Amino acid sequence: MREAVTYGTVLELFVTERAAHRHPDLIEASSAPVSLITERAAAGLSETATPQGIVAVCTTLGCPAAEALRGTRLVAVLAGVSDPGNAGTVIRVADAAGAGAVVFAGDAVDPHNGKCVRASTGSVFHLPLGVERDPHRAVAACRQAGLQVLAADADSGRDLDDIIDAGSLAAPTAWLFGNEVHGMDRDVLAAADYAVAIPLYGRAESLNLATAAAICLYASARAHRRRPAAGAIT
Amino acid sequence: MREAVTYGTVLELFVTERAAHRHPDLIEASSAPVSLITERAAAGLSETATPQGIVAVCTTLGCPAAEALRGTRLVAVLAGVSDPGNAGTVIRVADAAGAGAVVFAGDAVDPHNGKCVRASTGSVFHLPLGVERDPHRAVAACRQAGLQVLAADADSGRDLDDIIDAGSLAAPTAWLFGNEVHGMDRDVLAAADYAVAIPLYGRAESLNLATAAAICLYASARAHRRRPAAGAIT
Repeated sequence: MREAVTYGTVLELFVTERAAHRHPDLIEASSAPVSLITERAAAGLSETATPQGIVAVCTTLGCPAAEALRGTRLVAVLAGVSDPGNAGTVIRVADAAGAGAVVFAGDAVDPHNGKCVRASTGSVFHLPLGVERDPHRAVAACRQAGLQVLAADADSGRDLDDIIDAGSLAAPTAWLFGNEVHGMDRDVLAAADYAVAIPLYGRAESLNLATAAAICLYASARAHRRRPAAGAIT
Repeated sequence: MREAVTYGTVLELFVTERAAHRHPDLIEASSAPVSLITERAAAGLSETATPQGIVAVCTTLGCPAAEALRGTRLVAVLAGVSDPGNAGTVIRVADAAGAGAVVFAGDAVDPHNGKCVRASTGSVFHLPLGVERDPHRAVAACRQAGLQVLAADADSGRDLDDIIDAGSLAAPTAWLFGNEVHGMDRDVLAAADYAVAIPLYGRAESLNLATAAAICLYASARAHRRRPAAGAIT
């Protein structure tokens, strides 16, 4: 809520008396009209079991992919990600890693889904969310924006550590992440420059989406910011 | 379920007729006695909304921390982690990163919690889970096992990238992760060798526990397996 108010996406704010007393700063910071509502109305408007007593009407979040991608050097593309909690957590970690945008591609969850917004802990308001129903167009838009396109795929990918060692992550990069259950569509995978697999050293058969995204995005963030090790070819 | 059977921790197996037909390999692989039960009994025994029709009685998972830590080079310590889904996801990523054990320290969730077991997707059966109620003793047990003790703490830590560059992660390491909401107890933090912060490049104020653990544990996994870059002091 604080993030929505801070980043100016609130059109109208509804608060209970109790919430208004608890968060006077929030009411003050809002440039949108504020209306008092009853606890019962707040419960009706809210999706959660313990509503906070504040409900905001916000501008919609999505924009065309090409617009979201403008000037970015690191991007997460959710290609068919269907769990809203996963999507929100990836938005949060993409924000933390300094990504310039997140793109919802194919049959991905709606970024306005309440669980997605809550799991992002405000990050949906921090970076542009592109929406492109056709995953191939999403890949094309990434290339158009000057990004290499790497698909996270445990089954077919080159080892992430080898990619890091080769310096391949220094280039501006869009990371494609597929559906949690079915993985990435084969034809979307083929459209990427190549696939990358996070090495599995133990006996786990896979990683969950958000942890895999965290490892890939932070590997890129590090490659973008650190100089090559002393003695490496520069 | 498959993992529990494979790793021989099942004492007794209860299956519905339907599940027995669907998973004949599982029944065959089990060295434990198998009993047929009704769908209704399976629903009563299961915690989930859509029970799979198979219920196993397993040996308990925990062991003393010192026993779990024996011979390890990478360990995750859940110091007061209270969300079972988070704990299970950290066990899964620790397994994937090749950690030798996970230690539940202080007021951490019970590793037998159904949500923890399910979120681990079988990894609770892959590596020893140490249990030590006193977090200071858990830290002492890690040192005793020859591990440096690094506390993941966004507020007070040295930058993770600096630690990587300094080669500090090459040593056998126990990573301490604190409670999702309250963070790490100050005195537990003080007991660590030092605190490490994952850099936040965007506007996100923090990472969630599982993604933070993924980044730290995989940074260690990489440092343990890769040679220093050419030209670096070896």
